[in-house]
Order: sequence, then C-alpha cells, then structure tokens
Amino acid sequence: VSDAEHWFPSHVRHLAEEECWEILADHDVGRVAYCDDRGPVVLPVNYSLDRQAILIRLAPYSRLAVQLEDALASFQIDEYDNFNQSGWSVLLRGKATHVETAAPSAEGDQPFPWAEGERSLLVRITPDEITGRRLLPA
Amino acid sequence: VSDAEHWFPSHVRHLAEEECWEILADHDVGRVAYCDDRGPVVLPVNYSLDRQAILIRLAPYSRLAVQLEDALASFQIDEYDNFNQSGWSVLLRGKATHVETAAPSAEGDQPFPWAEGERSLLVRITPDEITGRRLLPA
Repeated sequence: VSDAEHWFPSHVRHLAEEECWEILADHDVGRVAYCDDRGPVVLPVNYSLDRQAILIRLAPYSRLAVQLEDALASFQIDEYDNFNQSGWSVLLRGKATHVETAAPSAEGDQPFPWAEGERSLLVRITPDEITGRRLLPA
Repeated sequence: VSDAEHWFPSHVRHLAEEECWEILADHDVGRVAYCDDRGPVVLPVNYSLDRQAILIRLAPYSRLAVQLEDALASFQIDEYDNFNQSGWSVLLRGKATHVETAAPSAEGDQPFPWAEGERSLLVRITPDEITGRRLLPA
C-alpha cells in the first residue's frame, strides 16, 4: 500500500515523471519541507525550474537558508477541486544545496519572489525521486 | 529572522493562534508531513478538527498510517492569489497518534475522505505549536 492510498485509493492515476515536470513548469508557488529535531517544517515558496531541479531565492542568513544547506529536503505542489473532490499532487524528494553565486543560472530562469527584501541566496533542490498522483473525479 | 521571511518579509502579518484555528475550521484539505531517513514527506489529506487537534482517516496498514504512529508530524494549509501575489499559510507542529476506536469522536466531527476504500484508522495530530502568516497584497 503506497502513500497515494490516503487520498485517493480508487480513482488514482500515478503521474509519469514527465507529467510531474510539466506540472512543475506550469506553476510558481509550492512548498519546501525540511526536518529538524522537532519534525517536519513545511513552508510556501516561490520557485522556478532549472532543468530538473527546483530553485528558490532566500535571504542568506534566514532560518530556512540555514536549514537548506546540504540537507535532505522536499518540494511539494498540489491542487484540488472541492466541487469535484478531485486533484493532483507532486512530491520531489532530494537534497538542498546553496548555489554558488559565481555560477548563476540564466537570469530568465530565476525564481521571482513576490515579497521584496534582500534575497541574494539561491537554493537548489535536486531530486532523488519525483512522484505524482492524480485523483480523478468520482 | 524567522521562517516567514522567505515568502513575505515586508507585507507579512503574523496570525494569532485563534485566527489559525478559524482558518483550519473553514477548510477540509491540507497536507500532513513526516520525516523518514530520506527526509520530509508531504502529502495532501482530507481532515477535520477535533477541538484543537487535526483528525485524518487512513487505511490501517498503509505506509502513512505506519509513519504516523507516535511520531513527530506537521500539518500545513495555505492559499494564495497569483493575481495579487498574496496569501496565507498555517503550520501546526506536533505529534501524530493513532486514535483508539474504543473512544471515537462524535460522528459529526470525523474527517470525510473524498476517496472510498477502507479507512478505519483515525489519526490525531496534536499540536505543540501553531503558527500562521498572511502576505498582504503589495
């Protein structure tokens, strides 16, 4: 029994990796997660894709930046329709690393945070695994 | 610098605990998170409130049910508006426990999963901490 079961055992369709990447490319807000000694922390972030990795922009000495330095991390995105009781979710599990500013990505690929403030640190979440599911309407 | 900073440093308003509970009472889909040896896992779930705790209904021997037995766990909910670049998020950190079926909650308070299938196990997430933020439109 997989994790998918909790949400949608009967009308579930597993998404191919390619579909997961298409969904990620079509959106710009998701959730980053990390673990500390009190368990998981899940926080919304603006993001962009850099090939097959997630990029987020943070203030260099924020708590999130410190937690996402060479650490296990996940990125999650979902959408659901209350009327149809349907939806989808994508979970990317991997490792977060700080990106050396000496080797920036192309400007067009950078995440654009809605909030202002100094966000000179780019963090990359590189996947070890990406999984997705779609719950079809009943 | 708090975690809030990553999303909305300037127009951020911290939500009072009471506001967080009101938001949780007004919704029925959120995300549960746990940690395993590969880091955090974040999955959408239907939920309900039982006083100041989250209830979710699972199949008894699913991976999620096994992971949420006497474990650190979090529950997260958020909403955002792409047009206004605004939104809010609530994070509840605490512990997940299996609820003895000998002592069920009132039927009206039970979570109603959209998916069918046997979901005889009730899991409660009891908070140690609940925090929320609202990002006001620019």
